[in-house]
Amino acid sequence: MTQDNAYDTVQKYHRAWTSGDIDTAMNYVADDVACRAPGIDLDGKDAYRGFIGGFAPMLTGIGDIAEFVDEDRVALFYYPQTMSTSTTPAAEFFTVKDGKITESVLIFDRLSYGPPEQA
Amino acid sequence: MTQDNAYDTVQKYHRAWTSGDIDTAMNYVADDVACRAPGIDLDGKDAYRGFIGGFAPMLTGIGDIAEFVDEDRVALFYYPQTMSTSTTPAAEFFTVKDGKITESVLIFDRLSYGPPEQA
Repeated sequence: MTQDNAYDTVQKYHRAWTSGDIDTAMNYVADDVACRAPGIDLDGKDAYRGFIGGFAPMLTGIGDIAEFVDEDRVALFYYPQTMSTSTTPAAEFFTVKDGKITESVLIFDRLSYGPPEQA
Repeated sequence: MTQDNAYDTVQKYHRAWTSGDIDTAMNYVADDVACRAPGIDLDGKDAYRGFIGGFAPMLTGIGDIAEFVDEDRVALFYYPQTMSTSTTPAAEFFTVKDGKITESVLIFDRLSYGPPEQA
């Protein structure tokens, strides 16, 4: 079923990146993925990997809020918890084709995560 | 049907506030609504009305992205267009009971809307 496949793909992607396994997560992302992220549009898997790979190490946990599925489209609402906040929600709207995420709209409030840390 | 009612409630709410009719919009909001908005938790209809009523005049248009329904829960993804941006997405996750919105998680990137305008 299309619905099960899209949901399954997104769940596997989500579990992988939120546990820090970016390589596995990227198995579920199309080479030509288009992602709209806060302040930047990411074109292609390399750009997407760089963005997600840069955020993943800051994660300290995930708080689930809700998930929705409609055929090849999946929405996740969750708390990506970091040292600076555990109550700032994020939303992702995925489009999945043939077992790969082809489009993503990622929404969160950058201000709630505070200024970037010093390297 | 529960599903139709929740979706219908959210659609009426959404159409009203995005056209600037805050009074009508608030007919679909519970007195004890709890809303998590960027940087602030809003408790009760008055606080919620103040927040939405403050943003609505800045709207110049709405761009639809996606909507999801699951029984009494509804998710909307859309572009709340303003003078400063037409491509910054927002997501709202609503819980509806008895024709009123009781909970809302509202997500957008405040930075993408630029600094507050001078009064």
